[in-house]
Order: sequence, then C-alpha cells, then structure tokens
Amino acid sequence: MTLVQIYNQQKKNLSVIEKELRRSVSSDHPMIESAAADLIKAGGKRIRPLLALLASEYGDPKRQDVIDAAVTLELIHMASLVHDDVVDNSDLRRGQPTVKAKWDNRFAMFTGDFIFARAIERISHFENAEAHRVISKVIRDLSLGEIEQIKQLFHSEQNLRCYLLRIKRKTALLMALSCQLGALASGCTFMLSRRLYYFGYFIGMSFQITDDILDFTGSEKELGKPAGSDLRNGNLTLPTLYAIWANPEIRKKVDSVLSDPEKDDKAWRQVIHDIRFSGAIERSEQLSRRYLEKAMKILSDLPDSKRATAALKEIAAYIGKRRN
Amino acid sequence: MTLVQIYNQQKKNLSVIEKELRRSVSSDHPMIESAAADLIKAGGKRIRPLLALLASEYGDPKRQDVIDAAVTLELIHMASLVHDDVVDNSDLRRGQPTVKAKWDNRFAMFTGDFIFARAIERISHFENAEAHRVISKVIRDLSLGEIEQIKQLFHSEQNLRCYLLRIKRKTALLMALSCQLGALASGCTFMLSRRLYYFGYFIGMSFQITDDILDFTGSEKELGKPAGSDLRNGNLTLPTLYAIWANPEIRKKVDSVLSDPEKDDKAWRQVIHDIRFSGAIERSEQLSRRYLEKAMKILSDLPDSKRATAALKEIAAYIGKRRN
Repeated sequence: MTLVQIYNQQKKNLSVIEKELRRSVSSDHPMIESAAADLIKAGGKRIRPLLALLASEYGDPKRQDVIDAAVTLELIHMASLVHDDVVDNSDLRRGQPTVKAKWDNRFAMFTGDFIFARAIERISHFENAEAHRVISKVIRDLSLGEIEQIKQLFHSEQNLRCYLLRIKRKTALLMALSCQLGALASGCTFMLSRRLYYFGYFIGMSFQITDDILDFTGSEKELGKPAGSDLRNGNLTLPTLYAIWANPEIRKKVDSVLSDPEKDDKAWRQVIHDIRFSGAIERSEQLSRRYLEKAMKILSDLPDSKRATAALKEIAAYIGKRRN
Repeated sequence: MTLVQIYNQQKKNLSVIEKELRRSVSSDHPMIESAAADLIKAGGKRIRPLLALLASEYGDPKRQDVIDAAVTLELIHMASLVHDDVVDNSDLRRGQPTVKAKWDNRFAMFTGDFIFARAIERISHFENAEAHRVISKVIRDLSLGEIEQIKQLFHSEQNLRCYLLRIKRKTALLMALSCQLGALASGCTFMLSRRLYYFGYFIGMSFQITDDILDFTGSEKELGKPAGSDLRNGNLTLPTLYAIWANPEIRKKVDSVLSDPEKDDKAWRQVIHDIRFSGAIERSEQLSRRYLEKAMKILSDLPDSKRATAALKEIAAYIGKRRN
C-alpha cells in the first residue's frame, strides 16, 4: 500500500473532517476567522486525523465520535502551532507567514486560545469518560512542553533525556493521543487503545527527530525557512546535541554563536555546516530508526485488521524515509 | 447575614479549595510555579468558588464534584486573568506586578496555558455530561471575548450592546457558570441550574459595571493603579461611553487622547475628570442597580434553601455597594 492509496481510502472521511474544521473556526470576527482559515488552508498532511481514522478501524470506524476525535486532534494541533510560533519566534511556517508574524504575538495568543476553545467544545460531545481523561492529560503535558521549551532555549547543557522529553511533548504525545483516541472513539478496549497509543508515540518521536535532522540537511526551498533555523532560534535539537557532546570544538563554536545570536551570518553558517558533517546526523538517524522499529514491533502484535495495520506500517515507513 | 459570616460558614470548603488550587498549579518548573503561586497568593475574594459553593446548597453540597467545580472555576478565572493582562497590557493587578510585567508576554501566555490546562484536567473528572457542555461553551465565549476586546480597543464608535456583550464575556459569563456548575455538581436539575446561572449572570454584569465605575472614582491607592487606567489603555467602558454619547465636547477630547495615547498626562487627567463629573457615573450606577434588581428577583423565586438564598442576597447587595 502507498501513502497515496491510504489517503484515497480515507478521502471521504478526510473531506468531512476538512469541512468540520472550517466550520469549527468560523466566527463573526473577521480577523480571527481569516487567521484560522489561513491555518486550515496551509493544510499539512492531516497526519493526526489520519492516524485517528486508521486506529478507529480496530473498532467500529462508523461511529460519529471518530470524526469528532479527528477534528479535535487537528484543532489542538493547530492551536498549539500558533502558540508555538510565539515561543519559537517563527515568522514562517511551511513557507507561509505565521499568525504572529502577520499580526503580532498578542493576536497569535488569542487565535490559539480561540481554536483551542473550539477543540474543548468538541471534546464535550464525547460520551466516553476515558477519552476526556486521556485528552486532558495530553493537554496538560503540551502546556508543560511549551514552558520547558523556553526554559531550555539557548542552553547547551542538556542531556538526551531533556531533548527526548521535549520532543515527546512537542510532537509524539499528540500523535500517540491521535491513535489512542481513534481507538477509544470506535469502541476499542482501553488496553488496545494503549497499544495504539505507543505506536503513535514511537512514530511521533521518529517524526520529530527526522524534522530536526531535516532542519540541517534540507534546502531553504524544501524547508520554507533557512537551514539551521532551530539552532538560530536557540533550539538545540538532536544533531546539535550529538555534535557538541562528541566534539569540544563544535561545542565552543555553538556556545559562541548562542551567546551572541546577532553574530554575523558567516559564523552561523559555519557552525551549522560543522554540525551537519560531524557524524551527528547519522547518529540521529539511527535513533530515529530505533523508534520506528519499536513502532513496527507493536504493529506485528496487533489483532487482525489487515487494512489498518498495512496502512500504519506504510505511514511508519514513510516517516523513516521522508525528505521534507 | 454579613459577608464575613458567609465566608466563615464556607471556611472549611474554601480552605480545601485553596489547598487544591495550590496543588493544581504545582509543577517541576520553578518559574511557572512561582508565577502561579503569586497569582494564588494575590488571592482576591474567591467569589467564583464561593458562588459555586452557595449554589450547591440547593442540591447536595457534600458531593466531591462541588469542590472540583469550584477549583476549576477559579483556575479558569486565573488563566483568563493572565491572558487578559496581555490584552490590556496591564503591569499591575491588585497593586502587584502582573505575570506579563514581571516576565514578559510570552511567559504570560504559557502560564495562562498551563493553568488553563490544569482546569481542563480537572473538568475531565466530572461525570455529568451537561457540566462538560456548559463549561466548554463558556470557555469558547471567553476566548471570543479576548479577541473582541482588542478589536474594540481605542474605538469610540461603540454602542451599548457592544459594551454589554464585552463585559458579559469578560466577567458575567464565568460568574453565571459558577452558579450553574455549583448547582449541577450538587445534583440539582438542569432547570434550577439555569435559574442560578441567570442570577450569576446578572450580578456579574453589575459587578463589572461597578468595576468600570470604580476605575474612575477610586483613588490610585484603592485601585492599585492610576484612576482612568481603562481609558488610558484604550478600553472604553460604560462611564466613558455614556459621557461621549451625551456630550460632543467630551467625545472630541476622548477621540483626541485616544488618537495619541502618548499625550501628556494633563490631557488625560482632564478628560478623566470630565467623564467623572458628566453624570455618566450616575447613569452607570443606575444600570448596575437594574441588573442587581433582576438578580434579586430570581432569588425570590428560588426553592427554599434559606441559608444559601440569604447568602446570595447578601453577595448581591455587597456588589451593589462595594467601593473597591
């Protein structure tokens, strides 16, 4: 099965979700509606709704809660993107100006609050009490992630655990929740939903590590922002960390540019080049693969739902080889 | 019954709530914990928990959901205060530096997100599906309120409906929810919870109008900030609106200072003085009283719970005569 086939199979559901997303963010406030509509149009792969839809095939995918879960997940994701752009001080996302760049930080805060409020509203429709609990825990951890992220900005004294916890909260948790919630919404047992949670968690970790690698190896055109943007914004991701742990010279250079972010572009480009060719990329790829293997292992132990399992396998494989 | 007696009667519950609030915002992040702890210490009257506790006396006030409801309400309130200080650009609240003043807007955003996430987490414990729905609607409307508020800043072309909707979202809704949720959590019928909702709504409207009046009539010491701060921040409240609707001279002056907020302090003080002695304060007081009368009317139609009814009456009366 290819990724295109998976999207095709879920085409009808995904278009319902798209419509519901648009309906969710409609409001009589033109600025907010325009900001939210931009976010929806910017699109992305709707990976979270897709994961929820696929996970729901282990139960009864026709339940209305499944669509609600998928929409909720994407709304939470969108809201957290908007607030994250404030944290990261990002002016571009997927090559488009961010809400905070187009308007300002305050407006980005409200837009995020608004989209998030819409997600909460939708959650209130779920009958399943377990669903409420798992969602609210993830929301709490996402908010902790936001805060940790600023705390760790520009700090080169970080261990692997720090980084892994950060990307867990930034990315893996919501992917894990997507799988779990799709399962719960379709009436799966809690046990099965937990196993799918871990599948989502492992591919989420791999997904974010890959993102962090691509930030170094991608071209400005592919990334929609200059290479090494994470580091330039003070965000030390896995390649940087591996590089500074292994090479005191690189650590010195990294500390030097971080201590003076206004440093000339040449110094930045040099340090980004050094990290890229330090072997740290390969080590990062290795860790990413390890997470994917764990995800694949979970799939092989799942009960029979051939179509969904094959699709999830393809998604995991795609994450392992994606280049943008 | 006096206000002091009411607080005394509820002392035990309120101290449990206080402890739960502190527990709710504990985290292993020192900055966030310190910011949240400051907010809790700054205190305030805990009017929302108190309303929930009193409303619960129309049902079974011993249910655990009642305390959860009260804590949730105060957390939502605190979270929205933090985000509101970003909107209002306030550096002081109750004479203390705000989170955004002590740190910055970004940090205030995360602190708000974090406290709000804690509220969501607590909501997930409620068994009552109706409670989920009423809370989530209020959350949505609060977020709309945030956004509307910026839109209307510095705009003198506003009608009464605009203003009333704004203070409904800013204040009255959460007080209304407090009463309703206290009732639902204690097992009251939905009908009764709706009537208590309206009681909370009416006193909330009166409460906010009074606040807006005090911003003009209070001394800097009483307010913990300079008189006329709302207007100085571009927030046109009822006294200003009544004054500019009735007096074209005042409108001209208001438009002039609003168009140049850096105007010298003398011009600001003159216009604030003009509004104060234009008759607008008295008209505002009149509208505030009208809302209180509506609240009292609801109380007289409630089923018998002498203690709670007497207490709610006292609270309404207090709101009518408070001076800070």
